[in-house]
Amino acid sequence: MAKQYVYLYNDGDGKNKHLLGGKGANLCEMTQIGLNVPPGFVITTEACLNYLSDSDRKLTTGVMNEVKQNIQAIEQATQKNFGSPDNPLLVSVRSGSAMSMPGMMDTILNLGLNSETLPGLVKATNDERFCYDAYRRFIQLFGKVALNISDEHFDEHFDAVKKQANVKEDVDLGVDELKEISELFLIVVKEQTGKPFPEDVYEQLEIAIKAVFNSWSGKRAIDYRREFKITKDMADGTAVNIVTMVFGNMGNDCATGVGFSRNAGTGENEMYGEYLVNAQGEDVVAGIRTPKAIQEMETEMPDLYKQLVELRNKLENHYKEVQDYEYTIEKGILYCLQTRNGKMNAAAMVRTSVEMVNEGLIDKKQALCRIVPDSLEQLLHPRLDPNAKAESLVRGLAASPGAACGKCIFDADRAELLGTAGENIILVREETKPEDIHGFFKSKGILTSRGGKTSHAAVVARGMGKACVAGAEGISVDVKARQASVGEHIINEGDVITINGSTGDVYLGEIPTLEPEFSEELKILLSWADKEARLQVMANADTPEAAEKAVEYGAMGIGLCRTERMFNDVDRLPIVVDMILANTKEAREVALDTLLPIQRDDFISLFKTLAPRPVTVRLLDPPLHEFLPSEMQLIDELASLRQLSGTVNGVANLLSSMRFTNPNPQDVPSLLPAPFNEMGEQMVNELIAKKELMLKKVRELYEVNPMLGHRGVRLGISYPEIYTMQIRAILEAVAECAKQGIEIQPEMMVPQVATAEELKYVKKIVDKTQKEVESHYGIKLNFKFGTMIEVVRACMRAEHLAEVVEFFSFGTNDLSQAAFSFSREDAENKFLPLYNDSGILQDNPFEVLDTKGVGQLMKMTVEWGRKSHPGLKIGICGEQGGHPSSIKFCHELDLNYVSCSAPRVPIARLAAAQAKLQENDDT
Amino acid sequence: MAKQYVYLYNDGDGKNKHLLGGKGANLCEMTQIGLNVPPGFVITTEACLNYLSDSDRKLTTGVMNEVKQNIQAIEQATQKNFGSPDNPLLVSVRSGSAMSMPGMMDTILNLGLNSETLPGLVKATNDERFCYDAYRRFIQLFGKVALNISDEHFDEHFDAVKKQANVKEDVDLGVDELKEISELFLIVVKEQTGKPFPEDVYEQLEIAIKAVFNSWSGKRAIDYRREFKITKDMADGTAVNIVTMVFGNMGNDCATGVGFSRNAGTGENEMYGEYLVNAQGEDVVAGIRTPKAIQEMETEMPDLYKQLVELRNKLENHYKEVQDYEYTIEKGILYCLQTRNGKMNAAAMVRTSVEMVNEGLIDKKQALCRIVPDSLEQLLHPRLDPNAKAESLVRGLAASPGAACGKCIFDADRAELLGTAGENIILVREETKPEDIHGFFKSKGILTSRGGKTSHAAVVARGMGKACVAGAEGISVDVKARQASVGEHIINEGDVITINGSTGDVYLGEIPTLEPEFSEELKILLSWADKEARLQVMANADTPEAAEKAVEYGAMGIGLCRTERMFNDVDRLPIVVDMILANTKEAREVALDTLLPIQRDDFISLFKTLAPRPVTVRLLDPPLHEFLPSEMQLIDELASLRQLSGTVNGVANLLSSMRFTNPNPQDVPSLLPAPFNEMGEQMVNELIAKKELMLKKVRELYEVNPMLGHRGVRLGISYPEIYTMQIRAILEAVAECAKQGIEIQPEMMVPQVATAEELKYVKKIVDKTQKEVESHYGIKLNFKFGTMIEVVRACMRAEHLAEVVEFFSFGTNDLSQAAFSFSREDAENKFLPLYNDSGILQDNPFEVLDTKGVGQLMKMTVEWGRKSHPGLKIGICGEQGGHPSSIKFCHELDLNYVSCSAPRVPIARLAAAQAKLQENDDT
Repeated sequence: MAKQYVYLYNDGDGKNKHLLGGKGANLCEMTQIGLNVPPGFVITTEACLNYLSDSDRKLTTGVMNEVKQNIQAIEQATQKNFGSPDNPLLVSVRSGSAMSMPGMMDTILNLGLNSETLPGLVKATNDERFCYDAYRRFIQLFGKVALNISDEHFDEHFDAVKKQANVKEDVDLGVDELKEISELFLIVVKEQTGKPFPEDVYEQLEIAIKAVFNSWSGKRAIDYRREFKITKDMADGTAVNIVTMVFGNMGNDCATGVGFSRNAGTGENEMYGEYLVNAQGEDVVAGIRTPKAIQEMETEMPDLYKQLVELRNKLENHYKEVQDYEYTIEKGILYCLQTRNGKMNAAAMVRTSVEMVNEGLIDKKQALCRIVPDSLEQLLHPRLDPNAKAESLVRGLAASPGAACGKCIFDADRAELLGTAGENIILVREETKPEDIHGFFKSKGILTSRGGKTSHAAVVARGMGKACVAGAEGISVDVKARQASVGEHIINEGDVITINGSTGDVYLGEIPTLEPEFSEELKILLSWADKEARLQVMANADTPEAAEKAVEYGAMGIGLCRTERMFNDVDRLPIVVDMILANTKEAREVALDTLLPIQRDDFISLFKTLAPRPVTVRLLDPPLHEFLPSEMQLIDELASLRQLSGTVNGVANLLSSMRFTNPNPQDVPSLLPAPFNEMGEQMVNELIAKKELMLKKVRELYEVNPMLGHRGVRLGISYPEIYTMQIRAILEAVAECAKQGIEIQPEMMVPQVATAEELKYVKKIVDKTQKEVESHYGIKLNFKFGTMIEVVRACMRAEHLAEVVEFFSFGTNDLSQAAFSFSREDAENKFLPLYNDSGILQDNPFEVLDTKGVGQLMKMTVEWGRKSHPGLKIGICGEQGGHPSSIKFCHELDLNYVSCSAPRVPIARLAAAQAKLQENDDT
Repeated sequence: MAKQYVYLYNDGDGKNKHLLGGKGANLCEMTQIGLNVPPGFVITTEACLNYLSDSDRKLTTGVMNEVKQNIQAIEQATQKNFGSPDNPLLVSVRSGSAMSMPGMMDTILNLGLNSETLPGLVKATNDERFCYDAYRRFIQLFGKVALNISDEHFDEHFDAVKKQANVKEDVDLGVDELKEISELFLIVVKEQTGKPFPEDVYEQLEIAIKAVFNSWSGKRAIDYRREFKITKDMADGTAVNIVTMVFGNMGNDCATGVGFSRNAGTGENEMYGEYLVNAQGEDVVAGIRTPKAIQEMETEMPDLYKQLVELRNKLENHYKEVQDYEYTIEKGILYCLQTRNGKMNAAAMVRTSVEMVNEGLIDKKQALCRIVPDSLEQLLHPRLDPNAKAESLVRGLAASPGAACGKCIFDADRAELLGTAGENIILVREETKPEDIHGFFKSKGILTSRGGKTSHAAVVARGMGKACVAGAEGISVDVKARQASVGEHIINEGDVITINGSTGDVYLGEIPTLEPEFSEELKILLSWADKEARLQVMANADTPEAAEKAVEYGAMGIGLCRTERMFNDVDRLPIVVDMILANTKEAREVALDTLLPIQRDDFISLFKTLAPRPVTVRLLDPPLHEFLPSEMQLIDELASLRQLSGTVNGVANLLSSMRFTNPNPQDVPSLLPAPFNEMGEQMVNELIAKKELMLKKVRELYEVNPMLGHRGVRLGISYPEIYTMQIRAILEAVAECAKQGIEIQPEMMVPQVATAEELKYVKKIVDKTQKEVESHYGIKLNFKFGTMIEVVRACMRAEHLAEVVEFFSFGTNDLSQAAFSFSREDAENKFLPLYNDSGILQDNPFEVLDTKGVGQLMKMTVEWGRKSHPGLKIGICGEQGGHPSSIKFCHELDLNYVSCSAPRVPIARLAAAQAKLQENDDT
């Protein structure tokens, strides 16, 4: 039997999205659960892939035969006839791949109209105006999508006719105008393609099917898949849906609309959506007419409203998920055209998750798994300070919540360009279209002057968690002049504006924003997550302030406290510099003695903030030259100093300029001393001497490859007095806390370890210091000693390292650099973008853990480490530790914890729970 | 039964060197094979380790009892009595560990003398002079070794008495003087230690035994073990030998001597050695009197000479190895005191290996295994140009062959200091002592004014393969004045001299040297090696000249040709710079088109030189900025250029200075053009423009960590036109050779590969270019495509990489940097010496492969690579590929080849054979 490429909705497998696409499978499912779906069928993704891989771009043999058979089945069901003047059947042709890619591929409506069927339709509907409207829509859409004719060729005629007829709204156009438009459109097609518009309906159908298939390999779709990391095993090829047309524009007992089964912006459990009376679906989506809120239907069309509520309930009860559905009312009959899981912002997802559990619709595991962890980042976006007394310039629709501020840019290309260059951009358009998508990615927010909450701009912005104000009709945008105006206010391109996607307000200038706070629902959800997760989630934090923030975010401890951040504080850096400039161990120790109590207080404060949670302190890591100015800077400073004439002006200028550039602010008195000339002169000479010393040291410490240089434990072994000071500060802090009866879990770890011998060397210092501190305080100290695993050789020697320590912490940033031989600083500017673009690497390995290479190292390390040290505690504190796919991998490796930046903690908590819950999904 | 710590030579196991030490085991063996060895016994290394680990430094209970029992056994054998005035027994106390460490530990002679036994000895020998001579020697040696009294305290008195008696040679001292000296020495001991010299002979014995044990943990011995990498499992603790004293200084029928069973310098099969009549052994070794060549004995003492020849033959027939033996003739009786395998220079080792095989004494495998591969490096040292018409200033003994040239330095400390700083040093001393050893390591050659061919200086220098002229009595050295003089010539410290250790000549200044050539014996030996080895030995060579050299050294092919070396040639660099400065692909291609025929000719020449051996060409590896001057240099050059006044002088100065510093010599005409002012002015302006462009590019290309930067395949993917040019040049060269009927084995490989995708990318270029070249030449090209394995991730992904290539080549230099996260350039200057000194790392991992870490990566790579690609060809081309222990590891990993620098090829060939021959030794 020949392979089947086409399935009627009554027959297709509603679960087989790979074959039928999301929409096709869904329509099968909808049909089969008894919703009133217009009859139709689906052509499989296999047919698409066959077509795209065929060098002549021919449809696989037999596909069109199957299509014809299925058209006949539809004809039977609808009692209409395709291509016949007698009650003609019209169909839509829509794409639909396994992954939802809203707006990315093409749709054709009203297919089946030609010079013969048009009169037939008029006869059947008895509505000439509707028919010509359908006809002109079909010609334009088919012309654009299937024949690649640019919209403007059509719009030009359309606008001219409208102007001539002196009408504003499309609906006000009469039959004659629409006839004229149709005729003009047919001429446009012939002019642009050199051929007449196809009359044969099966030819129309075949061209349309091919156009949809082609759209899969179009630039827009490819860009989208790359941005959203949709790989071939997630979706390969698009299916094509051929569905009987139903019309929302056959009169005032007709309507078309879209709905969310809950409020898409807030997640509130209420009817949500918009509709247009006497309109076709594309009018709603494209935002060409501003639609009415669904609530109006309750009074306008109460019976239909009831049906809609029933539909909504049926959908949610069946799908157990918020649904984004489309419907059309044709002469009082409600058809459900499509439904899919609703894309909502994170706040709405969280709220619905919690409420749907409370309603008994889903269980907690489902509630946790339906949220994309990274989306929670939206909840951490700033919102406008409610106390800021800013006056809104204009108000549009609150289309996607959150606040955003940036320069107005009036087209997507420029927005992309400037956004990539690091500018904050607000993309301002009359309305947006799928081809603007690249501009969205690089903008902070979107503002449109037309379209509703389900317009393209709104839907896409919500999906991305970007603030969006839509349909702000008070603004008129003049792209050519690169200006927008609100009444008499002119906004030039580049002017800064602020938008509030939660209220729809638009402001001139930058408005103060507030840090976001956790919603109650999110707290509940994350508490469920914590109960499910096996991985603990720690935060990377270096100061008590950062640690407090981390606790707010729900961190279960500090997985990485970088002590060098403490060294860099304004009040410590001069001491650190003195230590570095010292030429003897004794002189270094003098400086270190000054640092000791400061560091101890840091640690006491940190331990107390986190008590009783664990805090892991890493000993000094960066090379010493990082604490000194650059060679160039010192050369410049010395040149300026030496040119100083000794006059009051010269010295004063120097001092005032230095206050801004000098790394050691204590070198510069904030008030100029009284007997200025001499003091200035002396100060300058002292400064010269010091800078010369610094320059000498900088040159001495110069390294060709600092990333692989004299740092971490290598420094600790070269200058044991530095580590000794830090270890003492940690242990004395532990002792102080113990004395005060505070329960803490202190840990210390050694960076850049490559050999067990290095660890043993440091361990000796720890043991000695521990004895001294214990005998001084008269108490026993409890703490853990561990090592970073960030050097490849440490992985290879994990079995031996594990014998010396109580825990491992993967430093996957350095480990990835070493594993790839990529210097992150260099790679991200030089060749990584090219590597990602050309598909050599799918991700940036410094953001997403490279499980195949670096992950393989980690896997062996875990295995070997626990071989000699069963149950060894192992975590990760690299940046990737906050990335959901990396967290999943860490879970699978059976790590004990991940540690990430504080704002990623909620994401990591959810991801950790999902990793556990999805454990069995992959097997 | 209690543990036995002491063994009579008649009883000890002659194979158990670990327990009895080399010397003790040897004496057991010698005794047991019937040589006339003075009766004695050995105290085990176990007793030593027990003693050293005892915190009170006490001998293990029972050891002294066993010693007493064995002394009684000697008393019986010799009919002498220890500590008795009646025919007293004197013994020597000598160290001896499992590994020979000549001169490193202590020896005491004549032990058993005291105020009572001395008259007994006089009675027994009837030679008062001899007895007092023995007594004063004993007091001094015991004082120095066992009681830590510095020599100078004794020498002062000794010299004073000699002066007073007006004698030059020690032998001219009379009884009275020797008596006086003995008395003075006893006073020295009392003064220096606060106690009288010990009278009790067992007390003497116990102190002496402890002193020998202690010497194992003395600084000298520890330094020696570290330098020669003697680990605990090679030798742990020293044994102590107690042997009946026999005297070579009891009259003119007495003598003492040392012998080599073959010529120690050349390996020639002849009697070799020196002796002194009426002298004790230490006189020979210390070089205090210049001894006679052994050949003189044939006429002076013909019977004894015959006995000596018999002894030598017996030793070689038994030990199957060249022997270094010591003997004493006491009143006409020949005693063999010790024998050990002779330490010889590499030339002698090679010659004896080949000759001993020819004589049927050993087989080829033994011949190969007895030579330390690294020692062959000596054969690659330069020798003096025989045509150089230099006049020898003075001639000494040819103590260790080879020529050396450097600055005279008069003490070991300074020699070490300056040698470490990279200076060429000749260590010049009156005589050397074991405490000078650190100076040897850092000197190019050794020159002494006293001592023979078996003096300390000569033995140690030969062992190290350093040139040595010994006993150049014409030189007098004044260390305090930091001068030496030869007649009226004054040599100040720091003056350059040249020594010829093969002739004994010493020259002022630097004398031209010639490259060494292979001896016939070495060629024979290495041909045996090649037959045994499984690993092939390739060379790293970048030019046809270097390749020719490699073939001379016996390379079986080129394992690594670095194409960037070709880029750096004077005639190509300007083109390369143009290519780098180009801002478009097209402009780059113009420069690359110029390079293409040049590179193609390089490859043709290289392939032909090596034909039919394999040649592996690596595509461009270093980052582009390496071909440009540094930022600082450009800034300086621009500053000079801009200051130019345009005068003839200014421009002329500039041009002449630039000829030395400018990287692009073509920028500077060799003759100044005629209408100079204008041309100069214009040239300067053009130069400024070009330098500015270069500076801009240098800044654009700047990398924080160039080792991990934009290089290797990353460059090849960013600028595919570069790799395309190189691939085309290689393939066209292959085609040209094929056209000429030359059989070649070309290979190309890609550097810095981290992912299989990168390889596939380059492979596509190769496939495309191959098709083009094949169709142009009308022939099929045979070549191999491979990848460097020098990035850790490549190891992890070996299974996938192996699917794309035909060979792997480990770049263990970069791989070690990445595995350790050590930048070699930084590490070797900053912390590696400390890591080696403190024992954190035993070796420099960039010289000796780190088998535990990097080796583990390699092991997995081999396993995974051959899993998907059975029989995959795998080699190593890092610097470690020439190091014997690394070669052994590569053999064990079942690699196919090693590739190293050309001069290491002979060493690698021998090491590869040994790796195969010793395969079963380790199991």
